[in-house]
Formats: sequence, structure tokens, C-alpha cells
Amino acid sequence: MQIRTATRSDVPAILTLLEDDDISRLRGHVVVPAAIESAFEAIDSDDRNELVVAVEDGEVIGTCQLTFIPGLSRGGAERLLIEAVRIRSDKRGGGRGGDLIRWTIERARERGCRVVQLTTDKRRTEAQRFYAALGFQASHEGMKLAL
Amino acid sequence: MQIRTATRSDVPAILTLLEDDDISRLRGHVVVPAAIESAFEAIDSDDRNELVVAVEDGEVIGTCQLTFIPGLSRGGAERLLIEAVRIRSDKRGGGRGGDLIRWTIERARERGCRVVQLTTDKRRTEAQRFYAALGFQASHEGMKLAL
Repeated sequence: MQIRTATRSDVPAILTLLEDDDISRLRGHVVVPAAIESAFEAIDSDDRNELVVAVEDGEVIGTCQLTFIPGLSRGGAERLLIEAVRIRSDKRGGGRGGDLIRWTIERARERGCRVVQLTTDKRRTEAQRFYAALGFQASHEGMKLAL
Repeated sequence: MQIRTATRSDVPAILTLLEDDDISRLRGHVVVPAAIESAFEAIDSDDRNELVVAVEDGEVIGTCQLTFIPGLSRGGAERLLIEAVRIRSDKRGGGRGGDLIRWTIERARERGCRVVQLTTDKRRTEAQRFYAALGFQASHEGMKLAL
């Protein structure tokens, strides 16, 4: 499995992973609306945002987004926020998710981040065990307000 | 209470709020190390990061940091992450925190964000009630890995 920064041509496969993480095969011909194109452009041109894909046999089978956040706490170190983590359903359970997250943690260390954080839906108890096994502590409430 | 973007001269007061949110008076003469100066510069020069202060009678009595995160989910809309929320201890309980958070939610709406999110330590049950009263749902586990 190769892990790398996403390119524009990966966007349809990433959208498929984001929109339906239970499917076992990627759909072809996903339409990429202009707003999504703009969002990709915003991420791609931002040094503090990174869209990541995991590729196997030429297919995108995993993704996540990294945001490096500057702050005055912790001696001025960045924190890494991980969002939108997906592994294609037929590729789960083989350690690929762990490889992907460990890769992101290594990226955070390289940049001098002092903390890596993410939120996961409380109903996803399996995901919580997965992140706990990688060293994450469920120390916080993750609170969301939809607008 | 005035709410505005922080300037460099607000940094010592913000550090005091971040480092000790139980004190009732701001200490003077806080030393600002170079790394903190750099972090302020990084935030100040980034369109997607905003350090905010609440000011009363010429004194910084509250702060928070906003990060607007682009993403491919939710039709390509940004999400707002709120970090490092503090109200000076002697100014709590009077609705100022609510005013500050509502101001940030308004900023998120103006930018077209589809979600506002934050994490709060599970031991801060009062904070959880505070955010719930503002409409936030404690739907997620907030997981952190210190590096």
C-alpha cells in the first residue's frame, strides 16, 4: 500500500469513499461539482492542509485529511487534526487503517506537532478501539453544531 | 464587551489566559518566547486561522482560536474548529462565554461553514452543559495523542 498526497484525479475516488464507506467497489463516473473542485484547490494550495490517499494495485482504497493548526499553547507548537478517515470496506481488518494513521502521526512528528487529535462518532465503538490501540486517549467530548 | 481579532500586543494577555485560567487578575510582564511570536505570526498571516479576543474596560478577558477547514465532505463547505476557549475566571457566569461562542458561530455562518466543532475535556462537565445550551451535540469521542 502506497500513501501519498492526493492529486486532482484522485478526487472522484475520495468522494466515493466519503459518501459511502460501506461499498466494496468504487463507482466510476462520480461527478465532481464546482464547489468540490474549489475545496480541493483550497486544500491543495494550503501548506497546513493535506489530503492523503492510500493506494493499492493502482486503486485508491483509503483516505484522510490532515490539518496542521498553529497555536499559542504548548510552546507555540502545531497540532495535527485528522478528519475524514476512510478505508474501503473490502480492505478493512488487514492493518491498512493502522498503517495510514501511523503514517500521519509520523508526519506530525516531522513537523514538530505536540498533539494529534480527531473525533469519531460515539456509535463507532470499533473505531474507538482502533484509535485507542494506536495510543489515542478518549479524553474529550467531541461536540458538533450543524449549521 | 468587544470581540475582535487579536493583535500582537494582546499575546501576553492571551498567554496568561491559556496558562492559568483560574486566576482572577492578569499578570503583567509575561515573556513571549520566539516560538510563540512565530505561532502568532503563522495564525495572523493565515486566512483560515483567526485568534480572537474579548475585551472589557480595555482588558483582554476572553479568547478563542478559530480554524476554518476546507474539505470535500458536505458539498465542499468549510467547517469551523474552535480551540483554546478561555474566559477569565472572575468574568465567568455572566454570559460572556456565550456571547463569544455565538459570535464565532455567526462568523462561521458568514463564511458558509456547514458545521462548527470543538472538543472539551470530559472532566469539564460545566463546559459540556455550556456548549449543549448553545446547541452543540456531544455526538463524538474526542481522541488525543500527545507526541
